[in-house]
Amino acid sequence: MKLVFNQTDLMNSVNIVMKAIPGKTTMPILQCIMIDASRSRILFTGNDMELGIETEVKGTIIESGKIALDAKILSDIVRKLPNNEVTIVTDDKYTATITCEKAKFVIPGKSGEDFAYLPTIETRASVTISQFSLKELIRQTIFSIAVNENNKLMTGELFEIKNNVLRVVSLDGHRIAIRNLELKDSCPDLKVVVPGKTLSEISKIISGEGSELVTINFSSNYILFEFDQTVVLSRLIEGEYFQIDQMLSSDYDTKIELNRQEFISCIDRATLLVRESDKMPVIMDITDNGMNIQITTPLGSMNESMGVIKTGKDIVIGFNPRLLLDALRVIDDESVTLYFVNAKAPCFIRDDKNTYIYLILPVNISR
Amino acid sequence: MKLVFNQTDLMNSVNIVMKAIPGKTTMPILQCIMIDASRSRILFTGNDMELGIETEVKGTIIESGKIALDAKILSDIVRKLPNNEVTIVTDDKYTATITCEKAKFVIPGKSGEDFAYLPTIETRASVTISQFSLKELIRQTIFSIAVNENNKLMTGELFEIKNNVLRVVSLDGHRIAIRNLELKDSCPDLKVVVPGKTLSEISKIISGEGSELVTINFSSNYILFEFDQTVVLSRLIEGEYFQIDQMLSSDYDTKIELNRQEFISCIDRATLLVRESDKMPVIMDITDNGMNIQITTPLGSMNESMGVIKTGKDIVIGFNPRLLLDALRVIDDESVTLYFVNAKAPCFIRDDKNTYIYLILPVNISR
Repeated sequence: MKLVFNQTDLMNSVNIVMKAIPGKTTMPILQCIMIDASRSRILFTGNDMELGIETEVKGTIIESGKIALDAKILSDIVRKLPNNEVTIVTDDKYTATITCEKAKFVIPGKSGEDFAYLPTIETRASVTISQFSLKELIRQTIFSIAVNENNKLMTGELFEIKNNVLRVVSLDGHRIAIRNLELKDSCPDLKVVVPGKTLSEISKIISGEGSELVTINFSSNYILFEFDQTVVLSRLIEGEYFQIDQMLSSDYDTKIELNRQEFISCIDRATLLVRESDKMPVIMDITDNGMNIQITTPLGSMNESMGVIKTGKDIVIGFNPRLLLDALRVIDDESVTLYFVNAKAPCFIRDDKNTYIYLILPVNISR
Repeated sequence: MKLVFNQTDLMNSVNIVMKAIPGKTTMPILQCIMIDASRSRILFTGNDMELGIETEVKGTIIESGKIALDAKILSDIVRKLPNNEVTIVTDDKYTATITCEKAKFVIPGKSGEDFAYLPTIETRASVTISQFSLKELIRQTIFSIAVNENNKLMTGELFEIKNNVLRVVSLDGHRIAIRNLELKDSCPDLKVVVPGKTLSEISKIISGEGSELVTINFSSNYILFEFDQTVVLSRLIEGEYFQIDQMLSSDYDTKIELNRQEFISCIDRATLLVRESDKMPVIMDITDNGMNIQITTPLGSMNESMGVIKTGKDIVIGFNPRLLLDALRVIDDESVTLYFVNAKAPCFIRDDKNTYIYLILPVNISR
């Protein structure tokens, strides 16, 4: 095999495929990028068996062939090469020689006969949205998936299409994040759970431009993202997702509207008295005179008042400040509205256009 | 006590004094910043008993007094406050109330009666140089001090004044870094060893401006840096420093001149095949045709040729690539000259003006 690339193209493609290479594995072949130029195109594939990425690379095939190369080493080499023409040549012992200007690397490769290419899937439905929208949907929900694997479903996000609205949901037992996106094209109703890891990797690859598109294809066991010269295939998480609608309610006894940035700064100041180990709540005391935010920890105490537009009853309620911050930081509106029922019921942060709903459980502060 | 500050002034001063606060200590008072406004000035002091920093802070004394406050908490609070007027008030129980706009923090303090203020030292000699020069001298030598404490002297740097030249030296058993600076004023000859930690902290505080000055005062056990509104006092490391001059030699059998940046890029590429655990040398093969740089590790091999201007014998010599890179990166010249005797003798990188000498021991590559 003999291929010629421009260093920048090569580096970009390696970086994309790298996202599907596992950090540690007992199967060495999974740590490889499969370079396949056996036909008329140059395809790079990475596949950790949960998440697979295939991308077509700009380059010239002087002599066709294929080889599997260690992804980490290939990426390190390509990144450090000068920005010029890069040649990859392999011999019949699967040794690859990478040359660029006066630099020459020789690294061992593998035939890749045991490499798992991406399977062909049968698409049930597909939607096309902008890469920007997908990136935003992920950013605005991914923080509230569960990190540990006790409940596999919580480590993923629900992608639900109903009446041509895409709803993305994540939850971790203390909070729920929901984002809705109206679809331009019509699409059958469906419900799948996508692994959080897939979403966080894909959001690193897509450009985030409003003009660039991504097509999302759904099959019974897989979700497939197609964009630019790349396809990302991921297994779905099996099982019935939580009944979200039962947890949502539009009733409230207290409603406050406030400046988001001012609220963030204030909670941010409160959290600096909280050390990892102690889980002290920040207490919001809401009356007709405004809101008083207060926290007391072994390190000291802090209190600060801020103006809010209040409707309904007075309330004193406590929250883990981190959960409030996470939600507030991914909302783009200048002013946000919070809805409360009582000190033991969840608080909702939501907008009138039904773009987002963030539900946060309070902390018991009965003193 | 009641003091009023501008938040930016307060934050800058806290950040400076923080550099003398130990990460962990069994003596809680050492983790405090001493705020002393008992006379006409506001002084902040931090002191870990090896390194002490005192700075005068811009602010207004409404009521004089003093208090010791936990440095970490104070710094966290001040950093998160709005950029406005900050008031610190203490009561007779040494509780401090810090207010800014609508935010109010209450934190416990200490009387500070057991706090160690900086001792008064008797200056034997002093020199004044620009902050830029000091910062550069440190940056260009600090990387080659020893990190572990097996030999205390190696964890410091020699500051030697002789014939009005300041020579700064560091070494770790594998290499030596030497920088010389001609002094404008005359100063008696002297030799002290300054702790590496002191130097790395001070280089974070000084501005690096050529127009700003720093005065360095030497006593028998201490070194004292004075600049802006700040004094930094550090104990010296006791003992006789290594006899450097015996290790230096201006004889050579091979001399090469090369482009520094090209050489760095080349070694940089070679190192990517080196994993932490294996210490593979980079081999330089120098002939009349130029230099060939070659490395072979379990991950693969790399070779690259580069043009050099060579004088003298051919040589094949191996080095730990990290040591070469460390030295090359702190030299500012576009082209550098390397001097060799044989494959087992140290290599010298030095300039004609005697500004710098970097000595690096080779690695045995007898194959």
